[in-house]
Amino acid sequence: MSPKITTELLKQLRQVMKNPKYVQEPVQAYIVPSGDAHQSEYIAPCDCRRAFISGFDGSAGTAIVTEQHAAMWTDGRYFLQAAHQMDNNWTLMKMGLKDTPTQEDWLVSVLPEGSKVGVDPFIIPADQWKRMSKALRSAGHDLVPVKENLIDTIWTDCPQRPCKPLIMLDLSYTGVSWRDKITALRSKMAERKVMWFVVTALDEVAWLFNLRGSDVEYNPVFFAYAVIGMNTIRLFIDGDRMMDPAVREHLQLDSTLEPEFKIQVMPYGSILSELQAVGAGLSPKEKVWLSDKASYALTEAIPKAYRYLTPYTPICIAKAVKNASETEGMRRAHVPKGTVTEIIAADKAEEFRSQQKDFVELSFATISSTGPNGAIIHYKPVPETNRTLSVNEIYLLDSGAQYKDGTTDVTRTMHFGTPSAYEKECFTYVLKGHIAVSAAIFPNGTKGHLLDSFARSALWDCGLDYLHGTGHGVGSFLNVHEGPCGISYKTFADEPLEAGMIVSDEPGYYEDGSFGIRIENVVLVIPAETKYNFKNRGSLTFEPLTLVPIQTKMIDVNLLTQKECNWVNDYHQKCREVVGAELERQGRHEALRWLIRETEPLVRVQ
Amino acid sequence: MSPKITTELLKQLRQVMKNPKYVQEPVQAYIVPSGDAHQSEYIAPCDCRRAFISGFDGSAGTAIVTEQHAAMWTDGRYFLQAAHQMDNNWTLMKMGLKDTPTQEDWLVSVLPEGSKVGVDPFIIPADQWKRMSKALRSAGHDLVPVKENLIDTIWTDCPQRPCKPLIMLDLSYTGVSWRDKITALRSKMAERKVMWFVVTALDEVAWLFNLRGSDVEYNPVFFAYAVIGMNTIRLFIDGDRMMDPAVREHLQLDSTLEPEFKIQVMPYGSILSELQAVGAGLSPKEKVWLSDKASYALTEAIPKAYRYLTPYTPICIAKAVKNASETEGMRRAHVPKGTVTEIIAADKAEEFRSQQKDFVELSFATISSTGPNGAIIHYKPVPETNRTLSVNEIYLLDSGAQYKDGTTDVTRTMHFGTPSAYEKECFTYVLKGHIAVSAAIFPNGTKGHLLDSFARSALWDCGLDYLHGTGHGVGSFLNVHEGPCGISYKTFADEPLEAGMIVSDEPGYYEDGSFGIRIENVVLVIPAETKYNFKNRGSLTFEPLTLVPIQTKMIDVNLLTQKECNWVNDYHQKCREVVGAELERQGRHEALRWLIRETEPLVRVQ
Repeated sequence: MSPKITTELLKQLRQVMKNPKYVQEPVQAYIVPSGDAHQSEYIAPCDCRRAFISGFDGSAGTAIVTEQHAAMWTDGRYFLQAAHQMDNNWTLMKMGLKDTPTQEDWLVSVLPEGSKVGVDPFIIPADQWKRMSKALRSAGHDLVPVKENLIDTIWTDCPQRPCKPLIMLDLSYTGVSWRDKITALRSKMAERKVMWFVVTALDEVAWLFNLRGSDVEYNPVFFAYAVIGMNTIRLFIDGDRMMDPAVREHLQLDSTLEPEFKIQVMPYGSILSELQAVGAGLSPKEKVWLSDKASYALTEAIPKAYRYLTPYTPICIAKAVKNASETEGMRRAHVPKGTVTEIIAADKAEEFRSQQKDFVELSFATISSTGPNGAIIHYKPVPETNRTLSVNEIYLLDSGAQYKDGTTDVTRTMHFGTPSAYEKECFTYVLKGHIAVSAAIFPNGTKGHLLDSFARSALWDCGLDYLHGTGHGVGSFLNVHEGPCGISYKTFADEPLEAGMIVSDEPGYYEDGSFGIRIENVVLVIPAETKYNFKNRGSLTFEPLTLVPIQTKMIDVNLLTQKECNWVNDYHQKCREVVGAELERQGRHEALRWLIRETEPLVRVQ
Repeated sequence: MSPKITTELLKQLRQVMKNPKYVQEPVQAYIVPSGDAHQSEYIAPCDCRRAFISGFDGSAGTAIVTEQHAAMWTDGRYFLQAAHQMDNNWTLMKMGLKDTPTQEDWLVSVLPEGSKVGVDPFIIPADQWKRMSKALRSAGHDLVPVKENLIDTIWTDCPQRPCKPLIMLDLSYTGVSWRDKITALRSKMAERKVMWFVVTALDEVAWLFNLRGSDVEYNPVFFAYAVIGMNTIRLFIDGDRMMDPAVREHLQLDSTLEPEFKIQVMPYGSILSELQAVGAGLSPKEKVWLSDKASYALTEAIPKAYRYLTPYTPICIAKAVKNASETEGMRRAHVPKGTVTEIIAADKAEEFRSQQKDFVELSFATISSTGPNGAIIHYKPVPETNRTLSVNEIYLLDSGAQYKDGTTDVTRTMHFGTPSAYEKECFTYVLKGHIAVSAAIFPNGTKGHLLDSFARSALWDCGLDYLHGTGHGVGSFLNVHEGPCGISYKTFADEPLEAGMIVSDEPGYYEDGSFGIRIENVVLVIPAETKYNFKNRGSLTFEPLTLVPIQTKMIDVNLLTQKECNWVNDYHQKCREVVGAELERQGRHEALRWLIRETEPLVRVQ
C-alpha cells in the first residue's frame, strides 16, 4: 500500500477555501467528515470525499485542512491503515489515546484569531454541528456552512450518484407490511405529539417501505428521504425507479386507496425546499421529529421551536427488534453457504456465498488477511499487499453477505500448519472472551456496553486487549452495522438489549507486524431461564446464529474451564446437526467430512 | 417508622408559592432539590428542606410540589424507605424503572399552559437548571429563580447553619502544603487559559487548604467558598473561626508573604456579590473556571462568554489520586478499631471506633440492620423500627469513621445461628462478585463503570441483581463518597481509574421483607504485574485496605472456584498478619482468638 500523494490536491483545496465563487468570506479551515448526507457508515464512491482528499479510505475518519495543516482523526481500528495510506502532508490524530486533542481543541490551538471554519451543512450531523459550533464560538471563531461542497469543486472525475433498481420484499420476508409500519410510526408520533417525521437514514427508508436497493456497496439501500405526516407520505427518490410496474404495485402508487396511505413521489433533490415549506407552514405546537444525527441543513429547515430531536428514531428502535419472519430468515441465512492468496481466498468465499439461495451481494468487503496483514483490523486485500497463505502464518477471514432473508457476518481465524504456543495462548484468551459474552446471562433492559468487559477479562488478566468494540447491531437484509444496540466500551448512548435484537460478538487480539485473531458470531438476544427471577424482570442471553466450526487446533484446552470446554463442544455439536443435515441434503460429502473432522469434541486434561 | 403528616405544610407552601412577598409572579410548581448550596451529598440539618417538607430523609431525592400534586423522585436504594416515611399526599417516583417519568416530563404532563416553575437558584446546580429550563421552555413553561427559599419561609424552627471550629492537618497527614496545592492549581489554570477558579464543593475547599471541620455530620468539612485568582486567594467563611491563632498560623494570615499567597478572608454570605464584581470586571479572554455542578446563582454571576465549565474540577481530580502520605494514612486508619439490638450494636461499633487513635467522628450514619430491615438499603435504626438481633436472622453492619489519617467504610453480613442454604447461596454470589472486582486486572485508563458487571455476573447467572452501584470514590479524611471515580452501571461521566485512587467494592443482594446482604471493602488502585504489556499501557488492580474477616459460615464453599477460594484464604491470612499483630500489641487476646477463629482457611471439596 503506497500513500496517496496529496500535495497538489491540498493546494487546490486551499485555493477554493478563499474563492468568493464558493465562500462568502474565506474559510481558514475546512472540515471533511466521513459520511454522506444520510450519515451512512458505508458510502457510495461519489461520497468518498475524505478518501479522495487524503487517501485514507477506512470507514471512520474526519479530515480537517487549514492553511498550514492537514489532520485526520480516526480510531484504533484504523491507526495502521491510515498511517499507510496517507502521505506526510497529513498528521494522524489517534482517537482514544490520552494525548490526542479533540478536533475542536486542535482547531483552537492552530487557528489565527477570529477564524471561519467551513463545512458542508448536508454532510455534518446536527449534533456535531452544535458541539463544534459552540466550542469554536467560545474561542472566538465561527463554524460556517459552505453550501457547495469544496471537495466536489476540485474532484474533476467524481463518479455519478448511483441510482440502481429496487428490490421488493414481500410479507414472507418482512413479516409486516409497509402500511402497518406507517401506522405504527404514526401512533408513536401521536404519543409524542409530533405532526411530522423526517426519515433521513437510508436503512430506515428501506425498512419502512419494505424496499431494498444497491446504491451503496454491501448495504442494500437506495438514496431517498421520506417525510411522514399524520395524513401524508412523501418519498424523495430519483431516477426512473418509480416507473417499474412491480415497484408501483408494491407501493400501490396507482391504486385508489385511503388518502393517508397515498405516497407522493418527489425528486431526491427537493427535500430541502419541501422541508422548508413544511417548516414555514407549521402552526404553534406542530412539532417535527428528526434524528439528532440528521444533517445540519435539514435540521435548520425547521424553526428551532418546532423541532423534536431524539438520538434514536422510532424506526431505528422498531427495526432493531426482529419479528418472527425476520428471525427465521436470519437463521436460514446463516446455514451454508459455503490454496491460495488472500485475494483468491476472498473471491472463493464470495463464490461459495453467491451459490446460496437468496444471495444478493456481500455485506462488506471481505477481510482476508494472513500473518502481519491480520493485525490491520479493517484490512482489505489489494494487489500491492496481497500475501500468499502459508502453513507458517495465521489466516483471518471476516466475511458476510446479504441474502433476501438476512445479513451475515462471521470471522474465523485459522492456522494451516502448526500454531506456536503463544499464538494458541492468545487465540484461547479471545475464545474465552467470545464465550463469556455469548453465554452471559443478564437482566432484561441491560445495555450492551455493560457486557463489553466480559469479552476482555481473560485478555486483561495477561495484560492484553484489543482496540475496538466487541459487537454491533446487525440489520435484517439491511446494513451489517446498525444501531441502536451494540457491545462496546465506547457506546454509552446504546439502547437496552431486548429479545429479538441481533448483534455480533467479536473480540480479537492483534499484534502489530505479526498476526491478527478475531472470533466473530452473529448472535440473537433470547430470553434466558434462570433459577430465580429478581423483581420479575426476566433475564436474557444470546443464541449464536452463526454456525461455523472454531478451529480446535488453535485452542489451548488447558486454559479453558470445564464450562468453557462444554460450550465449545455444544456449539460444535449444533454445527454438526444443523449444517451437517443441510450438507447431506445438498450431497456435499467432502464438506460434510471436513465438518465432522473440525467439530471433534475437545477433551480437557485435568 | 410512621410517615410524616404533611397536609398542613403543603398547604402553607402552596400559599407562599402565590405570595407576592416572595415571588414576582405566582409559581405553579416549586422544586425542592436534595442538596445544599455546595451540592453536598450529606447536608447540615438547616439544609434538610426536602426531608422537612416530605418526611423522606434519604441522601438522594427531589421533591416537586404543584397546586394539585406532590411528587418525590428517588432511586432504588430508597424505594422502601421513602414509601415508609411519606404520607399519601406524596407520589413516589421510582427512578430507574422504565415507566417512571422524568421530572421534566411529569411537570409538562401536569402543569396548566404557560406555567412558572420556581426553584432556589443557590440550591440547583447549573447543569440541572439548564436541562430543566430547556425542557420546560420547549413545552411553553418557564423555570424561574426564587431568591428567598420558600421552604425556609414556612420552616419556623429551622436550625442555625453550623459554624464549628476547624482542624488543621499538617504535612505528615496531607503530604502536600496548601501553598503547593494552590501553585499546582494555578498551573492547571494557566494550561486552560483561565484567570479565576471558583471552589464551590465543601470537600474541595477543605482539601485545598488542608483544613477540616465538622459543620456537616460524618463529612469533615466546613461551610466556605474560595475564589482563586492567579495572584489572589479569597476564602469566604463565617464565624470567629479565623480568630483561632492556630488557624491563622496554618493559613499564615499574619505573616508577610508573597502577595499571591496572601489569603483574603471574607464573609460566607458575600460570595455572590464578590463574584458578580469579578464577573463585571473581566477583560475579554479572562475566563472563570467553575464546576458545571456549581449553583445556578453563582454560575450566572459570570457572564456566559467568560465561563469555563467542566464536570470535574482540577481539585476533584487531584484529590482523588492519593499521595504516599495519604495512602499510608488510609492503610493505618483501616487497622483496628474495633448482643444486642440494632441500635446498641451500632452504638457499640461507634464506641469501639472512637477508642482508636486519630478518631474524629463517624463517616456516615451506621447501618445496623437485622432480618427484613437489612433489605432497606440505606436503613438507619431508629426506636420505632429497632429489632432485636437474633440467631435466626441475618445481621448487616455498614459502618465507617473519620480518622485524621483516613476515612473508612466497611460492610459485613453475619449470621449468629445457622444460615439457611438459600441465604448462604445468595451470600456466596455476592462474595463472588466482590472478589471478581477486587481481583480484576484491567488496563491503565479503564473507567470504573466498565468493571461494574463483574460484580453482578454470578448473581445474574441465577436471575438475581442489586439496585445500587458497586462502588464510590472515598476521600482521605474527607467525604466517604467522592468523585470523580466510582464503579457503577449508572456513572458514565466517571474519570479513568489510576493508581492511588481509592474506591469501595460493595455488591449486595436484598430480598424485600426477608434480609439484606452486602460485602464491602475499601480498596486502593495499584499497578498490576501481568505476563504481557499490550501497547505498553500497564495494568491496574485493587489492594483491599479494609481488613475484617468475611464470615465463612455464610459461604457455600462449593459454589466458589479454586481461585476464589484462594482469594478468601489469602485475604484472611493478611487479616491475621496485620490486624493480629496490632491486637497482640494492644494485648487484646479475646479479640485475637476471635480473629484466628474467623479466618480459618476454607477447604473446597471437589
